[in-house]
Amino acid sequence: MTSDVPFRPIARAPRGFQDRRAAAIRQERRILAAVASVYESFGFEELETGSFEYADALGKFLPDADRPNEGVFALQDDDEQWMALRYDLTAPLARFAAENWDSLPKPFRRYAFGPVWRNEKPGPGRDRQFIQCDADTVGSARPQADAEIIAMAVAGYAAAGLPQDAYQLKINNRKLLNGLLTAAGVEDGGQKLAVLRAVDKLDRLGVEGVAALLGAGRKDESGAFTKGAQLAPAAIASVLAFVEARRDTRSETLDRLSKVIGGSAEGDEGLAELAQIGEALTGLSVGETMAVFDPSVVRGLEYYTGAVFEAELLLQTLNERGETVRFGSVGGGGRYDDLVARFTGERTPATGFSFGVSRLSAALNASGSAGAAQGARGPVVVIAFDSARMNEYFALAGELRAAGIAAEVYLGTSGMRAQMKYADRRLAPAAVILGDDEIAAGTVTIKDLDLGRALSSGVTDNTAWRADRPGQINAPRADWVAAVRDIVGRSR
Amino acid sequence: MTSDVPFRPIARAPRGFQDRRAAAIRQERRILAAVASVYESFGFEELETGSFEYADALGKFLPDADRPNEGVFALQDDDEQWMALRYDLTAPLARFAAENWDSLPKPFRRYAFGPVWRNEKPGPGRDRQFIQCDADTVGSARPQADAEIIAMAVAGYAAAGLPQDAYQLKINNRKLLNGLLTAAGVEDGGQKLAVLRAVDKLDRLGVEGVAALLGAGRKDESGAFTKGAQLAPAAIASVLAFVEARRDTRSETLDRLSKVIGGSAEGDEGLAELAQIGEALTGLSVGETMAVFDPSVVRGLEYYTGAVFEAELLLQTLNERGETVRFGSVGGGGRYDDLVARFTGERTPATGFSFGVSRLSAALNASGSAGAAQGARGPVVVIAFDSARMNEYFALAGELRAAGIAAEVYLGTSGMRAQMKYADRRLAPAAVILGDDEIAAGTVTIKDLDLGRALSSGVTDNTAWRADRPGQINAPRADWVAAVRDIVGRSR
Repeated sequence: MTSDVPFRPIARAPRGFQDRRAAAIRQERRILAAVASVYESFGFEELETGSFEYADALGKFLPDADRPNEGVFALQDDDEQWMALRYDLTAPLARFAAENWDSLPKPFRRYAFGPVWRNEKPGPGRDRQFIQCDADTVGSARPQADAEIIAMAVAGYAAAGLPQDAYQLKINNRKLLNGLLTAAGVEDGGQKLAVLRAVDKLDRLGVEGVAALLGAGRKDESGAFTKGAQLAPAAIASVLAFVEARRDTRSETLDRLSKVIGGSAEGDEGLAELAQIGEALTGLSVGETMAVFDPSVVRGLEYYTGAVFEAELLLQTLNERGETVRFGSVGGGGRYDDLVARFTGERTPATGFSFGVSRLSAALNASGSAGAAQGARGPVVVIAFDSARMNEYFALAGELRAAGIAAEVYLGTSGMRAQMKYADRRLAPAAVILGDDEIAAGTVTIKDLDLGRALSSGVTDNTAWRADRPGQINAPRADWVAAVRDIVGRSR
Repeated sequence: MTSDVPFRPIARAPRGFQDRRAAAIRQERRILAAVASVYESFGFEELETGSFEYADALGKFLPDADRPNEGVFALQDDDEQWMALRYDLTAPLARFAAENWDSLPKPFRRYAFGPVWRNEKPGPGRDRQFIQCDADTVGSARPQADAEIIAMAVAGYAAAGLPQDAYQLKINNRKLLNGLLTAAGVEDGGQKLAVLRAVDKLDRLGVEGVAALLGAGRKDESGAFTKGAQLAPAAIASVLAFVEARRDTRSETLDRLSKVIGGSAEGDEGLAELAQIGEALTGLSVGETMAVFDPSVVRGLEYYTGAVFEAELLLQTLNERGETVRFGSVGGGGRYDDLVARFTGERTPATGFSFGVSRLSAALNASGSAGAAQGARGPVVVIAFDSARMNEYFALAGELRAAGIAAEVYLGTSGMRAQMKYADRRLAPAAVILGDDEIAAGTVTIKDLDLGRALSSGVTDNTAWRADRPGQINAPRADWVAAVRDIVGRSR
């Protein structure tokens, strides 16, 4: 079909992909830089892999299926191999480690950050592309490697701006519950999974709800029935005792756990690992309130084989309806020993942590925490009063930049009123005017736009609205940069 | 097909996608941060768009074709719309600007950096994913907007670490040659394109070669014949006079150009724009040697409509065969007025610059320029001498980190010799040993690994090899961090 009317595509972003402006990105960039610097200080080196992996390497490909599984963005290369955009940063690490194992310094410590893609049904708050930021140690079975990852996560959240009382790392070990269930005669597979799923609901359903789900099942308020794990009463009692074993300190929790778990080889192994993690955390100066042993932590992914970690944000904020919102998990990880083995056939001990950058960024913004980045301030705008004098305006902007103040000259062709509106929409802290009067007087006029905004919205306080600090000042050329700096400093 | 043998995918990265380790990334990250900070200081705000665009929005889709054009990575979403990974950052900007035009402050100034994807045949040095870093002003037809983009590029390269004499922005205007050719009776289309192509080869073929290509054609050394643009001798003479019009200063070049071009309306428009750009560059304090008018600059992309810019690296290095290598272009841009119009039907003046991050990074590395990032140093490695003492090693590493020195404890299980080899492969500046002797003596042993490497490779000089600075020192616990800092400082 051809026609004389030119084809005009509709300008729209694909579903599930967001355009993000400076205010939304700035916080995230700041967090990534802070966390990367902590990872570097612990001796982790950055690794960047391409966006694509072969679909079989992602484990999202069944050899006898026509197309890779749902959930990834896949396409066929011109040599007919299926490639897919990575859906996390762990699968590419496993592929990289397997490919380069012989030549890598071992243990191999790497961090990585970048976008990952999920081909899911987009919805509010469900993006199909987002940033992950991971650190992993591959090739060390030492529990100290887990402890170090935890210590690094604790330091990372602090560097990102969280106060100490705003978060907590919660640590558990898969082997504990697994050993306990094996000792109680529960077999691997469906029943164990049902137990994990029940325990994972402790926060939401409380002990009674979990007890029901461990036994026959549970009917919720709507009347819907969820079938339970069918454990015997004695087994239910020991799972609950296990889940509630958390005490005030790591060593108290360990003591309590050893009473609940004791007896199975796997449980004892898990206890010994936790004990070593606890000792190393002390050696790493990670305080009791920053990293706690919490047997109720589950972590969804099936590939964890030992210790699991979860970072919980303790900050609470109110949503628009005035309800308390808990942010919950802002990161997690654990020990996985089988990912590299997918390629090599040899178990390779590994442990890692994934930092929830987007959630943390949202939480910091919502909480107005001390760690939150300042809003994305615009530059100081130099008004283009007279087209013949652009160079004088450029010189003013240059003086500001030389003083470390972001500045621009208005480059449109609209009049004064539109230019002030432009400066306002840019969230400029100040506008600078050099008109005929100013040139004659050897001065510059500076408008304090924050003050202007505050005055016009009626939100002024005594500090802002003082006779000696009006919304507009006329400064001599020798002094004007200092006057702007004063306004910019106040507006941060 | 199923079998009992587990499926073991081969660990390999897809063709044309690189894994990059710390040493390769570090320089690029440093450049991006430096350039972003310059862009911010000029009042440009960051914008991040998703990796995908609808294929029609990329202009890579013919409405009556079954599949999007070659050259992009495209796939069909579950609603049957074709999406493709962006191949540059300009097309997403045009889509974003068209989509949000009414609500944007205008002119809209944004910078962006991130990966772009090209579905091309991979080869040595031809990656299918690489980083772009762009700044654009949309909605200003003022030549000052071009001048500002140029000034910002000049400042960006300086911030990235290039010395002033290592690069130059070359500026031309499409309207000049176009006006000249129109005046000479050359029609738009094939013949004009052939002229552009010929002029673009000036560097490689010299004036004589270009003259041949402007006329009947040219036979190269292999005997292959390239058909020429078939210009008449008078037209060839004026194109050559135009191409060679560059003089020492911008105003001298303008003078010369006005003599060569004068007469056509489009040429005069181009001259007037260049003159205004020149004036604004002076206002922006961009020196004559940093930004020159050079009529031989072409720039390939057809969408440029006025001023075009190219950043040329003047650094030269020797390759492995001892031959001089010129790096050439490390960025470019220009004025394009039609990209947003694809969506809206309305011409929207725009100008921008794309920073050649990868090429600049490679050039800085190859030249060993003062701006080059130091090699990716590893952390200081604390040797794990005795598993029972891990916490003491963690404490040592913690002391180093507290002093701002990256440090790690070796977390494998190998012996002393393998640990030293590990430290060496990590490019650690120093290894720290706390054994029984040291504990008894209240000291720490520090090995200067750079010195060790220099000694073992025979590459020592008198400064490094002095009796008072041996490769191994034994420092008291009170002083040891200072001793490590001394070694780390020396090794940068």
